[in-house]
Amino acid sequence: MPLEIYTDEYFMKQAFAEAEYALAKDEIPVGAIVVTGHKIIGRGHNLTEQLTDVTAHAEMQAITAASAYLGGKYLRDCTIYVTLEPCSMCAGALYWSQVGKVVFAAPDEKRGYRSMGGQLHPKTIVEEGLMAARSTQMLRAFFATKRG
Amino acid sequence: MPLEIYTDEYFMKQAFAEAEYALAKDEIPVGAIVVTGHKIIGRGHNLTEQLTDVTAHAEMQAITAASAYLGGKYLRDCTIYVTLEPCSMCAGALYWSQVGKVVFAAPDEKRGYRSMGGQLHPKTIVEEGLMAARSTQMLRAFFATKRG
Repeated sequence: MPLEIYTDEYFMKQAFAEAEYALAKDEIPVGAIVVTGHKIIGRGHNLTEQLTDVTAHAEMQAITAASAYLGGKYLRDCTIYVTLEPCSMCAGALYWSQVGKVVFAAPDEKRGYRSMGGQLHPKTIVEEGLMAARSTQMLRAFFATKRG
Repeated sequence: MPLEIYTDEYFMKQAFAEAEYALAKDEIPVGAIVVTGHKIIGRGHNLTEQLTDVTAHAEMQAITAASAYLGGKYLRDCTIYVTLEPCSMCAGALYWSQVGKVVFAAPDEKRGYRSMGGQLHPKTIVEEGLMAARSTQMLRAFFATKRG
């Protein structure tokens, strides 16, 4: 049996690589990538401070990039990997894109779409928890520095 | 008593001017403007088809433009005028921006944030119904053409 390289973990690590870019820019570390057929077609990391724009979340940029790559606004055959549960803005964008699958690492109990309100498309498959500890740790360390 | 020029209706008409631009590009006609101190600092109209990007709603573009103008991501002293009730994506963006006031024309019973889920910031004032008939008529005519 051939070794499966393109696992969910492989792609989630790529989302974490994006989160690391955000961290290096002193942004809240969240990263996202959009994948179709084992190919990464969109990447993004949080840039709300750099761009002074609340809409510059990781997922929004990854969605825009993936749509530009595909030349179409629907992401039905795509999976988005994101290091934190999407907020209701990003869930709304994912709803409109009809994305096939959302895999997110840590839950966001305060600002995630499940508590803030909002929804994904009814056909979207959702998986959570992959590498969640790494995301939580990264975010906690970031906010501890900010308070320190 | 001096005549008040800068009424809500004055600014809503500007939002409708944006919706007309969308219509001219065969986009679902929705427009938005962001105002602070009687000055329009952000404009946007729906461009989801032209840009093949689900995030290209009128409000998102107006928010990004206003933030760029201000050099800051918060729109606490601003009002956004929009011709249709925001969806949950746009409501989420408005939440993060902490916008002072939202004035929207027509309700969106299917895809508005009040039915789809999502929320505005608790400090945001909301007014609805100004020139609602014009918005509803514009949207109905657009969709009738699409079906025709």
